[in-house]
Amino acid sequence: MPLVRIDLRAGTSPEYRRAIADGVHQALVDSLAIPPDDRFQVVSEHAPENLIHDPQYLGIARSDKVVLVQITLSAGRKPAQKRALFRRIAELLARSPGVRPQDVVVNLVEVAWENWSFGNGESQYTA
Amino acid sequence: MPLVRIDLRAGTSPEYRRAIADGVHQALVDSLAIPPDDRFQVVSEHAPENLIHDPQYLGIARSDKVVLVQITLSAGRKPAQKRALFRRIAELLARSPGVRPQDVVVNLVEVAWENWSFGNGESQYTA
Amino acid sequence: MPLVRIDLRAGTSPEYRRAIADGVHQALVDSLAIPPDDRFQVVSEHAPENLIHDPQYLGIARSDKVVLVQITLSAGRKPAQKRALFRRIAELLARSPGVRPQDVVVNLVEVAWENWSFGNGESQYTA
Repeated sequence: MPLVRIDLRAGTSPEYRRAIADGVHQALVDSLAIPPDDRFQVVSEHAPENLIHDPQYLGIARSDKVVLVQITLSAGRKPAQKRALFRRIAELLARSPGVRPQDVVVNLVEVAWENWSFGNGESQYTA
Repeated sequence: MPLVRIDLRAGTSPEYRRAIADGVHQALVDSLAIPPDDRFQVVSEHAPENLIHDPQYLGIARSDKVVLVQITLSAGRKPAQKRALFRRIAELLARSPGVRPQDVVVNLVEVAWENWSFGNGESQYTA
Repeated sequence: MPLVRIDLRAGTSPEYRRAIADGVHQALVDSLAIPPDDRFQVVSEHAPENLIHDPQYLGIARSDKVVLVQITLSAGRKPAQKRALFRRIAELLARSPGVRPQDVVVNLVEVAWENWSFGNGESQYTA
């Protein structure tokens, strides 16, 4: 159910991007108990001038390797779970492919459970 | 008012993508009574490694022709309307350009009516 | 904290796109008192057939230079602030790079304050 959008600068390898996608998904599994096969992710690569970030907002030194992760998911997770998710994403992306924790920016967009169809024109979560 | 993002794998024709966009829009018109000229859509094509989906989550056999449709719209539709929308999108995309219903994944993001400006710096829905 | 997605047709200069991004950010600073260094923006350029807009919805004459601006931000702004933001974005983009106000379409997606991590795996707004 999470729909994950990952935006980063162009110039990385498919393996590098895959490791980021894998890490974000594993963090969702670990922190929010998302089913391992509930995975839908879109990775977009951008020219330098099209991915704009502040290099020091809130005192965090971001580099051009910044990764923006926007996760649309069903509502209902508690703040502690969200904090665990942020922590776990940064942890796993640092491990592989080696993204600096300062470069991991995450945003959650919450929607109703009835707002998903995973195929066949059905609303599987409200069936 | 819906802002529709359609993500799919690169390698399709403009006509194929247009048919998808047309079908999604017609489904909004048919199911939610969206005005026919209330249409704003962004289609993004992705390299295989940048569009990641599970091929069997919830027992639905998805292929590499999966289409992710994310629709931002104003809040207030009832669950039955949302279900009708999902059904109609799958139905119309199966008819043209021939997307398998298993490959149609839809997510709705709901926002307040006051959260839109359609030009001229105005908030047309709250004027 | 706003995460801004700007979608427009390909074929513009980096300077043109930068002026749009600058204008949208300045409008957020001016209208909502967003900190000047709280800036995260993704600009995406699209082939003509992949950016679909109605050229007259609500009586506003849009051109192929339409700019779709989707802003994810924390909830809590009053309608009057949102209206001021829309006005200011159109005003600044008309000034530079010279986008017609009719071509500026804006959508806001509101999320909880706890839904952000700006690096280091932390939830800075709830610390």
